[in-house]
This record gives sequence, structure tokens and C-alpha cells, in this order.
Amino acid sequence: MKYEFSARAHTLLSSPLLSIRTQTRRGSMISLAEELPAEELFPLSLLAEAAATVISADASALQYGDPAGYEPLREWLADDWLRGKGVAVAEGGLLLTTGSQQAVDLLCRVYVDPGDPVLVETPTSPGFLQALRMQGAVIIPVEGDREGLLPDHLRAQILKYRPKMLFATPSFTNPSGILWSLHRRREVLELCTAHQVLIVEDDSYGDLHFQRSGESPARQYPSLYALENESEGGHVLYIGSFSKTVAPALRTGWAAGSRELIGMMTAAKQMADWQSSSLNQQVLHHLLNVSAFDLREHIATLNREYNTRLKLMAELLKRPAWKSSTYHMPAGGMFLWVSLPEGLEALALLKCALGKGVAFLPGPLCSIEGGANHIRLNFSHPGRDELLLGMNLISEAVSEFTARS
Amino acid sequence: MKYEFSARAHTLLSSPLLSIRTQTRRGSMISLAEELPAEELFPLSLLAEAAATVISADASALQYGDPAGYEPLREWLADDWLRGKGVAVAEGGLLLTTGSQQAVDLLCRVYVDPGDPVLVETPTSPGFLQALRMQGAVIIPVEGDREGLLPDHLRAQILKYRPKMLFATPSFTNPSGILWSLHRRREVLELCTAHQVLIVEDDSYGDLHFQRSGESPARQYPSLYALENESEGGHVLYIGSFSKTVAPALRTGWAAGSRELIGMMTAAKQMADWQSSSLNQQVLHHLLNVSAFDLREHIATLNREYNTRLKLMAELLKRPAWKSSTYHMPAGGMFLWVSLPEGLEALALLKCALGKGVAFLPGPLCSIEGGANHIRLNFSHPGRDELLLGMNLISEAVSEFTARS
Repeated sequence: MKYEFSARAHTLLSSPLLSIRTQTRRGSMISLAEELPAEELFPLSLLAEAAATVISADASALQYGDPAGYEPLREWLADDWLRGKGVAVAEGGLLLTTGSQQAVDLLCRVYVDPGDPVLVETPTSPGFLQALRMQGAVIIPVEGDREGLLPDHLRAQILKYRPKMLFATPSFTNPSGILWSLHRRREVLELCTAHQVLIVEDDSYGDLHFQRSGESPARQYPSLYALENESEGGHVLYIGSFSKTVAPALRTGWAAGSRELIGMMTAAKQMADWQSSSLNQQVLHHLLNVSAFDLREHIATLNREYNTRLKLMAELLKRPAWKSSTYHMPAGGMFLWVSLPEGLEALALLKCALGKGVAFLPGPLCSIEGGANHIRLNFSHPGRDELLLGMNLISEAVSEFTARS
Repeated sequence: MKYEFSARAHTLLSSPLLSIRTQTRRGSMISLAEELPAEELFPLSLLAEAAATVISADASALQYGDPAGYEPLREWLADDWLRGKGVAVAEGGLLLTTGSQQAVDLLCRVYVDPGDPVLVETPTSPGFLQALRMQGAVIIPVEGDREGLLPDHLRAQILKYRPKMLFATPSFTNPSGILWSLHRRREVLELCTAHQVLIVEDDSYGDLHFQRSGESPARQYPSLYALENESEGGHVLYIGSFSKTVAPALRTGWAAGSRELIGMMTAAKQMADWQSSSLNQQVLHHLLNVSAFDLREHIATLNREYNTRLKLMAELLKRPAWKSSTYHMPAGGMFLWVSLPEGLEALALLKCALGKGVAFLPGPLCSIEGGANHIRLNFSHPGRDELLLGMNLISEAVSEFTARS
């Protein structure tokens, strides 16, 4: 049969993301391309116990659940916010999703019509770009520096395009690893509030903050959602996830915002898949609330280990192959965003690297144009040996190219 | 902030489905409105064991998985089909989803543009209508009788509207419980194939076949997908689910079709939420493949029990309040589709019934127009006492209305 796909379905296939993922799942490929957490740090035995307990305790654990998600887990999140960050979540203002990507997609579906202008950081998350393209948004980049988005450019783009939304990741932007300064956070919030631009704040990486200081990072670098919370204007939709801090296979993310916005997203969620796995949500809740698991301690362990891996990767980038490369050393997150020697294109390098058995994310996936000479390297997943081998193979590929030119 | 939702977001709120669900989850409400399986028949201890084993065995069980779903479970499904129904699934022709509803939604997103005409049975599943409305489809009803869709009307609607798709549930149509005859199945497949109309076949209820005969129901009433499989034309997208046969909270459904169609849906799936819970898929696979669980035996147990409940409900419909009601006695599924006494409207009756503490699904949710004097009653979830009490309360409500008129 000759299929007649919908007008924007082809946007889904234009990205090489799917094929990189498929390739890296095969056998011996080393992947620095994805955003995988370290498996060896998963709280396996506590999760196994939680799952067995939850299933055995009550048959209703396996029944259909609430489209908004398991209520006690939503309450746990609201409490955690109030205690940890002094932020009060609106009643009815939380929705549990299948990871943070579903929150992004649901919001796009209820908020974006084809042709609507939407602002993104440049570079930005490939997942944002995919969801926006599928919805037919006109994607407008906003430039930034090491402190975050540039307020002057943001203002200019707002006045020029009258966008409906801004997608941003103020804490460890994917892929650049930038941590916005407090001052910049305030300026962006103020500008967007003044011009009725809804901010979608992805905070999936915010807890992966390696810097150890007296004050908690959440207080030092408050989310835009927390900053606005004092005025409760509903200009920020916050997106979080347990994928990086507990385990991805539980597929539990969430969105927090005004009751009106979350209500609409919940209706879309019900239409899209009725609800995410309430079993997984119950297991998470048991882990967080009943078992001996301490999320803050666990995150501290992750951060110590990830910081070690980041330093190793930075060390390996001092080798001759990378002598004309530059990068910003992030204070957290999962990625290094590295510029390639002049004239070397990320997609050409990727092809060569895949042939050697290693993958990374090529820059062009992270912006609507440009990024051709950047690559994103993940340091959270590979262990020491894998990281050494993977970086050796990429270095080899880089050297081959630079020797030729 | 004043939100500017997308043009079709309001279609999500126009349905009272969400509020019925929210109300029936509260305390003492008896719900005959939903499509819940019987909790007391869930294989709890085997599932608890499977979950603990899977999580303890391998940390990768908790890592990100394949967007198409856990491969061994896809292989199990393909094997099961080959053995049970003689049907060969195409290589790359299976996608695991978050329940069957996500398969419906993903297909709509990659196949329907606003204004595209799409055929549905009348009455049909509220979930189909929601996904189609959100996508902006022009929904065209096709009439049927107790044997299935009427070929003459189907042909007339195809010629008049040139639709891209037909949504159908040949085995125990939601809500009417109709089981299409083999002859009618062949005719519909032939018509759609001739006119390049993609058939979306929801077989979520197909295994809930109560009739006991020598031949297996799957052979006696083959799915349209199985019927076409001989020619491999790719005109049928098959949708199935473990929600009714194992447990809904595992949120595992699937779509089967041509490699091209499933490939596009998998790309949409990755954009929408990367992947469903591979942990749940692994637990299911362990249950089906390794543990002492026997799916066929389990389904036979469900069918015996559901048949008993159906008969009890039919018995209760013999009471005086229902004397002018009619319904077709289904051979399986989860629902009775009952006409109300003349002049009695389902939505008015629902309001009264909710006041008494019982819910059902009002007919208008199951078609684009009409259905005002029908209600859908679920018999699979309530136990004997709950069923008696719930039916008493609805009967009371009906009597109050008919006494008045």
C-alpha cells in the first residue's frame, strides 16, 4: 500500500538521532552520544524490594490509575519542593509524565499551532527541536554566553517575532552545560513575563551540580519556576525527571505549573496514552518515602562520580589531536560541548568514528542551523576504561582528518 | 498569564470523560463507566517475583531502552502470533506502546492532517474520537449491524468522502460488543484494500471471547491483520494490549503492521516520550516466558468469570425498570450497550446516577452525533455485590425518570 503520511511526519525522519541510537545499542559500540546515567550506581536492591512490596501489597497497584499520575508521588514532589526550595506547587499543578520528553511534547501539542514562533537557546536540546518541528513551530534561536541567554538578543527576538514560548534549560543547558547566573535568570524571567512569553524550563539536569559550596545549589541558582513562584504568575512551566537521578526505565518525569496549564496538559495526556505506568510511580514513591533510600545522598554520590568522569574526559582532551579544540568546563550535567579543529565537520567525523566503534552526538542536531563543527560528548555513562577507549577512538578519527588537511 | 492554547486543544476539554473518571476514583462511587479488568484476578505473586528477579538480575533493566520496545518481548509476540494464529509479523513490524491508546494516537499523528476524512464505526470508542478530533480529522460514521460494518454503507462512504483510514474493532466493538462475522471481515478488508483505505484494527478485547467451541476463536474470527497477512499488502495496522489480559498498570500495548508504517510510528514514539517503560516490558516478558504463568489458561479464567458477570448483569436488566430497553448479548468483551426507555437521555440519567453513587458511560461519548439514549455498562470490573448494588442504583434512577414522564 502506498501510505500518505501527514504533512510533518517527515520531520521525524529527517533527524539522524534514531539511527545513531539504533547503532549504539548494537554489541560493542561505545556510546558517548546519549544521555545515559551510570548503570552501576542504580539502587537495584532497594528498587527490587520496592517493586515486590508494592505489587504484593495491593492488587490496585496494577489497575488503571489517575491520568495525572499517582497522587502520593505528586504529593511527595510538592513536599520536596516546599522543604528543599521553599516553593509552593499549585493545587492541581503537577502532572506525572513518561519522562521529561513527554512533558515537552504534551505542552507543544496544547500550545503550539503550525507557524507559531517559539524561542530556543542556541545550541539547544534535540528533543525540543523534534517536538517543535512535529508541531510546525517556527523555531527562533536566541544567543547566549557563559552566563546564560543574552537579554538584549532575547528582547530583540521577542520584539521581532512576538513568540508564544521560550524553551530553556537554565541549569546545565543541553548540550552546552551552561549554568545561568542568578542575575541572568531574573532578567530572562522579567522579559518573558513583560511580553507574555511562556517559559518552558527543563530542569532534568539541575540536581547534577558538582560544585560543593555551603549553600545548596537550588538556593544559589533557583529555577525560574521558583523565582516566579513568589508572584504566581504562571509564566513558567517546569519540567523535571527521575531518569537522571534514580533510573530511566521507570520513565517518570513531571511538569509543574499553573492549574490551568497543567489541566490542559493532563487532558492531552489522557488522550495520548490514558496515563503513564502507575506501577512505576508507586515503586518510586515506595523507594523515596518508605525504603532506606536517601535521594539527596544518592545524588551526592552520582555527582562525585560524574565529576571524576568529567575530569578524566577533560584530561583526555589535552591530547594533541584536540589542540585547536575549545570547550567550556561545566559545573555539572552530563555533557561536554566541544568545538572541532577548523574545517572538520561533526557529521563527517561521526561517520568515521562509528566505523571505529564509537559514537557521539553531532552538533547540527542541537540547532536549526550551524553546530557543524561541534560535538556533544557524554561523560556520565562510560566507566573509566570505556571512556579511555572511546576518547582514544575519537581522537584517532580527529587525527586522521587533521593529518589529511 | 493569559494562555493562548493551540487551535484544537479545546477538543480535549469538550469530553466529559475526564471528569467522569475523576469522580469515579473518589471513595465509594461504583463505576460501571470504565474499562477496568477485575483486580482480584491479577497474577500478583508471579508479577512481584518477576519484577524482583528482573531488577536484581541486571542493572541494564533500569537503563534507557529501545524506542521500539524490549526486543525479546517483541519476539515473544511475533512467536505467539505465528504459533497461535499462523500469522507472520514483518521484520521491524512491531512497536511496543504505552497501552493501545498510544498506538492509536501515534498513528493519527503520522497519518492524519487537519481536514482528512477518517471512517469510524458507529458507535465507536471514545478514545478513537478524542485522538482523531485532536488531529483535526473529519470523522465519518459507517453503520453496522450484528454482523459488523455494512459493506454497502462502507462503499458509499468511501466513494463519497475518499477517506484515508478506517478505525474498527471487529472483535467486540467498543461499546456495542459486536463480533464481526468472517464473511463481513473479508468484505471490509477487500473494500478498503481496493480503495487504499488504511484499516486500524483495535483488537484489545479479541481474547475476551466467552464462547467455548472446538475451534480457537482466533481461527474462527481471524483479525483483519491475519486475513491480509497472506497477501502482505500493509493495509491493516493491528493494535493489541496486555492491559485487559494481564494488568493495565504495566501500560504495555503494541502495534503491528508493515515495516514502513511501524518505522514512522517508532520515530513518532521517540519524539513523544523516547520509549515506554522497558522495565515493565521486561517484567511482562519474564512473566510470559520464564515464570509458571500460562497466558492462555489465565485468559480462560478471565473469560469464565467475565461471562458469569455478564449473565448476572443481563439477569438484572430483566427488572421492570428496563422493560422497554434493548441490547445485544455479546459473546465477549467488557461491555453491554443498552438502549434507554424512549425519551430518557443518557446524560440526564448519568447526572442522577452520579448523585446516587454509580457511574456508567453515556452514549454520546461514543459517536459524533446521536447515542443520546444509549449507555455503556462495564461488567468485567465489579464483583457480584458491587454489580448488584450498582445496577440497583441505576435501575432506581431509570424508574424515577420513567415515573415522571
